[in-house]
Amino acid sequence: MTEEQISALSVDEEEDVVDPWNVTGKSEAGIDYDKLIKRFGSQKIDDELIARFEKVTGKKAHHFLRRGIFFSHRDLHNILNVHEAGKKFYLYTGRGPSSDSMHIGHMIPFMFTKWLQEVFDVPLIIQLTDDEKILWRDIKVEDARKMAYNNAKDIIAVGFDTANTFIFNDLDFIGQCPEFYQNMLRIQKCVTFNQVKGIFGFGDSDVIGKITFPSIEAAPAFSTSFPFIFDNKVLPCLVPCAIDQDPYFRMTRDVAARLKMPKPSLLHASFLPALQGAQNKMSASDPNASIFLNDTPKQIKNKINKYAFSGGQATVEEHRLKGGNTDVDISYKYLTFFLEDDDKLAEIKKQYESGELLTGELKKIAIDTITPIIQDYQARRAKVTDELMKEFFKLRKLNI
Amino acid sequence: MTEEQISALSVDEEEDVVDPWNVTGKSEAGIDYDKLIKRFGSQKIDDELIARFEKVTGKKAHHFLRRGIFFSHRDLHNILNVHEAGKKFYLYTGRGPSSDSMHIGHMIPFMFTKWLQEVFDVPLIIQLTDDEKILWRDIKVEDARKMAYNNAKDIIAVGFDTANTFIFNDLDFIGQCPEFYQNMLRIQKCVTFNQVKGIFGFGDSDVIGKITFPSIEAAPAFSTSFPFIFDNKVLPCLVPCAIDQDPYFRMTRDVAARLKMPKPSLLHASFLPALQGAQNKMSASDPNASIFLNDTPKQIKNKINKYAFSGGQATVEEHRLKGGNTDVDISYKYLTFFLEDDDKLAEIKKQYESGELLTGELKKIAIDTITPIIQDYQARRAKVTDELMKEFFKLRKLNI
Repeated sequence: MTEEQISALSVDEEEDVVDPWNVTGKSEAGIDYDKLIKRFGSQKIDDELIARFEKVTGKKAHHFLRRGIFFSHRDLHNILNVHEAGKKFYLYTGRGPSSDSMHIGHMIPFMFTKWLQEVFDVPLIIQLTDDEKILWRDIKVEDARKMAYNNAKDIIAVGFDTANTFIFNDLDFIGQCPEFYQNMLRIQKCVTFNQVKGIFGFGDSDVIGKITFPSIEAAPAFSTSFPFIFDNKVLPCLVPCAIDQDPYFRMTRDVAARLKMPKPSLLHASFLPALQGAQNKMSASDPNASIFLNDTPKQIKNKINKYAFSGGQATVEEHRLKGGNTDVDISYKYLTFFLEDDDKLAEIKKQYESGELLTGELKKIAIDTITPIIQDYQARRAKVTDELMKEFFKLRKLNI
Repeated sequence: MTEEQISALSVDEEEDVVDPWNVTGKSEAGIDYDKLIKRFGSQKIDDELIARFEKVTGKKAHHFLRRGIFFSHRDLHNILNVHEAGKKFYLYTGRGPSSDSMHIGHMIPFMFTKWLQEVFDVPLIIQLTDDEKILWRDIKVEDARKMAYNNAKDIIAVGFDTANTFIFNDLDFIGQCPEFYQNMLRIQKCVTFNQVKGIFGFGDSDVIGKITFPSIEAAPAFSTSFPFIFDNKVLPCLVPCAIDQDPYFRMTRDVAARLKMPKPSLLHASFLPALQGAQNKMSASDPNASIFLNDTPKQIKNKINKYAFSGGQATVEEHRLKGGNTDVDISYKYLTFFLEDDDKLAEIKKQYESGELLTGELKKIAIDTITPIIQDYQARRAKVTDELMKEFFKLRKLNI
């Protein structure tokens, strides 16, 4: 990012930086998500909304919702209304492929999306923005496409089904679907340079590909971009994504109003913190900050034991006396993401904060919780063949 | 155009305005093309180049070349070298469809391109930028596509052959060819907003589609954008076009160097003047300024008699004494475009300038020259069916 971009995005120095390219918190406890909701102008997911969600769907809310991991939304009520009326919508999420292996933080939106898809029984579209990687990094077209295919396999292994899930990478798909390009163009006609400057902090020295890229992430939020799936019908769209992607959809929602299309609804995820602490999100570019989906049990154990920032005290004696701090303890934070059992989690919190549970013991619980999840994932991942992947990429009808 | 754009493009008020959106001359004699060559940094097509052209091709130069109607070039020598070495290149030209019927001014680059194609026996690619029309005007996608198809039929009737000519419109084609989109992206990565601001005069309040559009006109100048024609081989490209399109190719040539691709060579046409005088080019939006390809003989006769600006004197007596001015006479100018016989044209010039030939008589010669050309054209146009048009649009191999 240029100086210009940074100053456009972060209003004062005390603020967390959260945009599609940078996420950094000022506090040890991580990003202040309540402040972010105010700054972005979205809505907090509160108990009342969760209650309505459970009433409308007849399902218990996912622990990501119950624990505020998905913490913010835009117009989720609209989607609940649509579902209540027995009508259909679709899910759209995506990923910018950036390395050969994904880490467990990348999985959060996809795990939740899979659950949403099961709860609502709706089609899902997953965009892999390999073109974005070309524009932002020094990567060749061929390499970006390969990364997209590898990432697609990782995503498929979360447990998606070809019957109702379409996956595409921009570098191949945009050249296969005139209606998608036509929607890109309609969007590009509604957005000025001044607007993308304000929203994304682009400057005069940015390349024109970056300036127009937001239209490419916006287009899948309109069902008419996929005539082979939706027969040119207009369906509402729900986008579950990490909060850093919200600027794209603030823009998309403005554009939707001008194009007389439904505004996409949003569900915003917080970030899985890096092992070293909650100021930073897990990052694929730092192997020691992340647990990768292809890590061995030994690697997972070593990384958590060695790097997971502890909220415990300096000595056992002091810890027994004062207790650990779950607000900053990374092993505990990971348990909020991966340990489904609310009672067990509450018990761990109580024991750790009271000093009964030591850091090493907490780390062991985290290791024992995360390792089988990764192992199950790896067993599914091993079964994702090129042929299966190609099925997901095929332009085709989905079960709607 | 915004104020900002105008000031970026026209350095001082005494200069002619020539850019992709505006063409206006300051003098009654029209655009000062020699000045334009200096401003654009292109090369004049001089006698030496024409002599080399004739030597290398073994063909007499087209009267558009001999008479300076195609007056400027970039690296034409490179193309002559390629041809001399027995190697192939390809031709690329295009059009921004803007109305249902094209006028005779639109035909000039296509007539010349057809001749070039015959002389060199090379494939030709014609781009119809219907997406540009969406961005610059208040036109719907469906209507822009229809205009593109109608214009394609008009162009085909110039006499192109499906064996070696591929025609495409962006709104349909970009969504059919991933390699084209990938090249757009490579180009978009090489060009900053600052650069398109400098070249095209775009401003902060322009929509992002306009800002990125130049990449779409640039992409066809690289043979790898059409793998179904060129099998991913890198072929040099020659672009015959009106001089107002040069900014796109100045940019393309810069980009080519960065992408390690051959820079496209260019041949620049001057403009067919409007009936009312050489300050303005013929314009589809003013029916009285233009002779349309579907005008009847009566309409052609009436328009030339009524509107064609005369370089003759106020009275017959004065005309006989002082003679007419061929520098500003539109009927005479049209003859330089449409009367192939050099001797006959020289004779007309002599007679008109001496006062022997009256304005009415000169107009009659213009009418008698243009009318059969349009009638022949209309006979060919009547035979261009939807089926034939579709053949040109089919993604396929060409004779190379």
